[in-house]
Amino acid sequence: MEFPSKLIEDAVNEVAKLPGIGKKTALRLVLHLVKENESKTTALTEALDKMRQNIRFCKTCHNISDEEECSICKSHRRDKSLLCIVEEPNDVMAIENTSQFLGVYHVLGGIISPMNGIGPADLKIDSLVDRVAKSQGSIKEIILALSPTMEGDTTAFYINRRLKEYPVKLTTISRGVSVGGDLEYTDEITLGRSITGRTLFS
Amino acid sequence: MEFPSKLIEDAVNEVAKLPGIGKKTALRLVLHLVKENESKTTALTEALDKMRQNIRFCKTCHNISDEEECSICKSHRRDKSLLCIVEEPNDVMAIENTSQFLGVYHVLGGIISPMNGIGPADLKIDSLVDRVAKSQGSIKEIILALSPTMEGDTTAFYINRRLKEYPVKLTTISRGVSVGGDLEYTDEITLGRSITGRTLFS
Repeated sequence: MEFPSKLIEDAVNEVAKLPGIGKKTALRLVLHLVKENESKTTALTEALDKMRQNIRFCKTCHNISDEEECSICKSHRRDKSLLCIVEEPNDVMAIENTSQFLGVYHVLGGIISPMNGIGPADLKIDSLVDRVAKSQGSIKEIILALSPTMEGDTTAFYINRRLKEYPVKLTTISRGVSVGGDLEYTDEITLGRSITGRTLFS
Repeated sequence: MEFPSKLIEDAVNEVAKLPGIGKKTALRLVLHLVKENESKTTALTEALDKMRQNIRFCKTCHNISDEEECSICKSHRRDKSLLCIVEEPNDVMAIENTSQFLGVYHVLGGIISPMNGIGPADLKIDSLVDRVAKSQGSIKEIILALSPTMEGDTTAFYINRRLKEYPVKLTTISRGVSVGGDLEYTDEITLGRSITGRTLFS
């Protein structure tokens, strides 16, 4: 692709580094900014810079937060004996949107993935073990809400081993046919798990 | 959607103002920046700010340019007697990529669209008429490369009327079945035009 301007080219190259944005989309976005008033670009870049420079992570659960401790960890309404382990902050948002979970979270910041060079030390697993140890038994149950992939299973297995010595119940979110999903179109592994993991009809 | 942080929310709202980017995609992009080093965000915002603040438009053809006159208008290899009228800078890029056009351009900056409140005065049409008048007959042919829509036809009709008094040949790019396209899957209007606009087999 040949660009009419070095400035456009540099901007397109930077935008195209974002995940899921190719050069063509990046060009469309950049040309949109050129067409709009300069204040639109300033508003965008200022919001991004301000966000990146001032963003903090909760000292307890490592979720994104504006303060030292996030609003979920600070809340007196949340059940501190129930801990849900997730990979990323967007998983917390997804679970919060269900309104079905009233415990607290622990954000690992990723998943064990030797292929991508991510080991246990790169994640907040030590911090998790520390948190469980310091709770002196007040954390009763830990729910693993990780990806249903090899990496997710490896991470779950590793966490299970690290937490063996503590009196805490380790559970995992259920896998099965999605609500509104069709049996016919469900993949075999999911359908198989939904049968082995069947629950009492109530 | 509830956000764990006001900073994230503001950033997502700004990113979601870009065309074709919804809130979910915006959140994914913003969380990507949070996960990456701060320098990545700075590189992105600096490239965008620098681009928007310093971008210029060619004084002759109104295409995006780093200088007062764009490289196409400045080139001695381009045929100045052949002018191609397009809507936006990306149309110039698309035509340049074909390597089939050796004339120069005139970028209107949009298209006449009463529905969106865009009239002839919002476009570089006066500048086009001026350019043709000042050329004193040296511009021999003007190719209209506008969208094959109602708005494109309206704009073409308006330009035709404005240029009537000048001795210049007005042509339009051909419409027809696309190369590699299948007759069966070509819409009736395009197929119809390809028959009425048939060319001599050579």
